[in-house]
Amino acid sequence: MINIVGIGPSRKDITIRALEAINDSEVVIGYKLYIDAIEDLLKGKEIIKKGMGDEIARAELAIEKHLEGKNVALISSGDPGVFGMANVFFQLVAKYSDIQVNVVPGVTAANYGASLLGAPLHDFAVISLSDILTPLSEIKRKIKHAALADMVIALYNPISKTRKEPFREAYKILLENINHSTPVGLVRSSSKPPEITVTSLDELSEDQIDMSTVLIIGNSMTYVEEGYMITPRGYVVRYPIHSMAREFYEDFFKDKTVKGCNESCEFYPCHAHPQNCTFCYCPFYPCGDASTGGHWIRDKGVWSCQNCEWIHRNDTVDCILSKLPEIAEDVDDLKKHKKKLLKLRRECINKTNQK
Amino acid sequence: MINIVGIGPSRKDITIRALEAINDSEVVIGYKLYIDAIEDLLKGKEIIKKGMGDEIARAELAIEKHLEGKNVALISSGDPGVFGMANVFFQLVAKYSDIQVNVVPGVTAANYGASLLGAPLHDFAVISLSDILTPLSEIKRKIKHAALADMVIALYNPISKTRKEPFREAYKILLENINHSTPVGLVRSSSKPPEITVTSLDELSEDQIDMSTVLIIGNSMTYVEEGYMITPRGYVVRYPIHSMAREFYEDFFKDKTVKGCNESCEFYPCHAHPQNCTFCYCPFYPCGDASTGGHWIRDKGVWSCQNCEWIHRNDTVDCILSKLPEIAEDVDDLKKHKKKLLKLRRECINKTNQK
Repeated sequence: MINIVGIGPSRKDITIRALEAINDSEVVIGYKLYIDAIEDLLKGKEIIKKGMGDEIARAELAIEKHLEGKNVALISSGDPGVFGMANVFFQLVAKYSDIQVNVVPGVTAANYGASLLGAPLHDFAVISLSDILTPLSEIKRKIKHAALADMVIALYNPISKTRKEPFREAYKILLENINHSTPVGLVRSSSKPPEITVTSLDELSEDQIDMSTVLIIGNSMTYVEEGYMITPRGYVVRYPIHSMAREFYEDFFKDKTVKGCNESCEFYPCHAHPQNCTFCYCPFYPCGDASTGGHWIRDKGVWSCQNCEWIHRNDTVDCILSKLPEIAEDVDDLKKHKKKLLKLRRECINKTNQK
Repeated sequence: MINIVGIGPSRKDITIRALEAINDSEVVIGYKLYIDAIEDLLKGKEIIKKGMGDEIARAELAIEKHLEGKNVALISSGDPGVFGMANVFFQLVAKYSDIQVNVVPGVTAANYGASLLGAPLHDFAVISLSDILTPLSEIKRKIKHAALADMVIALYNPISKTRKEPFREAYKILLENINHSTPVGLVRSSSKPPEITVTSLDELSEDQIDMSTVLIIGNSMTYVEEGYMITPRGYVVRYPIHSMAREFYEDFFKDKTVKGCNESCEFYPCHAHPQNCTFCYCPFYPCGDASTGGHWIRDKGVWSCQNCEWIHRNDTVDCILSKLPEIAEDVDDLKKHKKKLLKLRRECINKTNQK
């Protein structure tokens, strides 16, 4: 058996399946640094360490040992299927008869990096910036569409001493297509423990990045709180409807509230002039999603909308009004159909966020 | 400490870090099925099993136990940062003071599924088809751009008994934007062991998919060989230049070979009429990449181009000719600059593959 084993991003992030596969192998082959990282697991085994490059030769060697009747472990860091040894090996799978192969998945850098940054992922793209085997035009096309899709983007192999152009091109495309304030997380594994930085797209600098860095670029909803990078998925926070909000929505659903700017209100502008007062109380309260400016009042269990002006924008109000009647007809529907409402909120954020 | 622990996709794919975090915890909270899967690890611990849904309540409970001074493990299957409990938890992180959190990454379904299918990933997008919290318009936009980017696409939560529309919409978008013969891999974890299917986009059927299935849609280079789904990254296979190819390229670089269709050749058409004979011998030989039709002659170590007609297409020849002079000036450059040549090949595949 040839085991193509992902050992994960760090010594503790190895799986039981990977440990077993290594234990069952008589020959262990891999890039020098990866082999060194698991040396304690390799007592009594034939160890073949290789330098960087010539991956095909490494895979051929594994096959050769396998055809001699030995159990082989071909080591990959992270996950072997993500720019790792699985892709190398399978270029050769049909070259020989009777090859038995077992791919052991591992934790890949996108998930490892994300775990150290908080919860930055939602739908996401994993893209390698290495243009050694991949044309720059292909990389640029992927970056552009990932940005237009508003996906979170994890960038692998971002830079090396001699290879900076792909990063510069990718950065340019990102600046052209997403907001410059978009949070960016960096996890630099060459430092032990890994160095973690949370910055923004416009403050991102090449100097912060090396070959071992994984970059996570947020989407248009990603925010930073307590130093964590967070991309909300929009889970429902349950909360009773406040009596004043209830009163407002009883009138709202009878079409008795003021639409648009209400300068005659004694509290106007409760946020900032000019503001659209159609949703004097927010129909999504509490959204529990800081991406539009709201926040928890710490230790009080209360969600504050103080810094959220999004609900008072004209384009927001238009978007909500166009769909709200399909979801809610009276004040109790605001509670009953909270999931649908939060989905509408998200739909309108997507619309109003579009660059 | 609150440990948000990814237990991976199956019992053996759990990491050492996850085992330690669970071991260190006094309280373990999670969705019933995930807790059952790790029951043997939980002796003597306070176990709180919850049903599906109300994720916020589960996170609140973890925080409550943590604030009582207990070590808590909040369990997620796969990776907690991919549509998992990390995103839930971080909606609440700023609600309380003195919360200490530790996210333990795990192997996510895209990597697990890929490991069972072969090596289907290259640059890839992970997209959830669940429209419970996410508007369908957002999902469709992501699918479309991922397809236009020619990324491999991993689809999570593809279908449920009552939720089929997002899959149908996504499928329609894929059919409109990528080749119908694109390989699709399915890994259905509700079966034990997981049921693995490799099919093509046009033969994909809703009946093959359930809630536990991860779908991996190939890119334009993905091919199927020996039942494995393989997306080539294009590693260099080294091989001496054949004497006849050498002779041809000595003439080629002196501009002494026939360009275009060479009907007067005694072997014409060596592939199929009409064919462009400009590259009578392939400058990329052996590419070791079956996506254009070549294959290994088993156990002979020889790469056969018999079924590859790509090099004899007019658009391919035009693309190669436009850039080849930048890379190679004589026959030895074909060997010396193999990486650059394979990159050019890939660039031209991208161009000629575009739907």
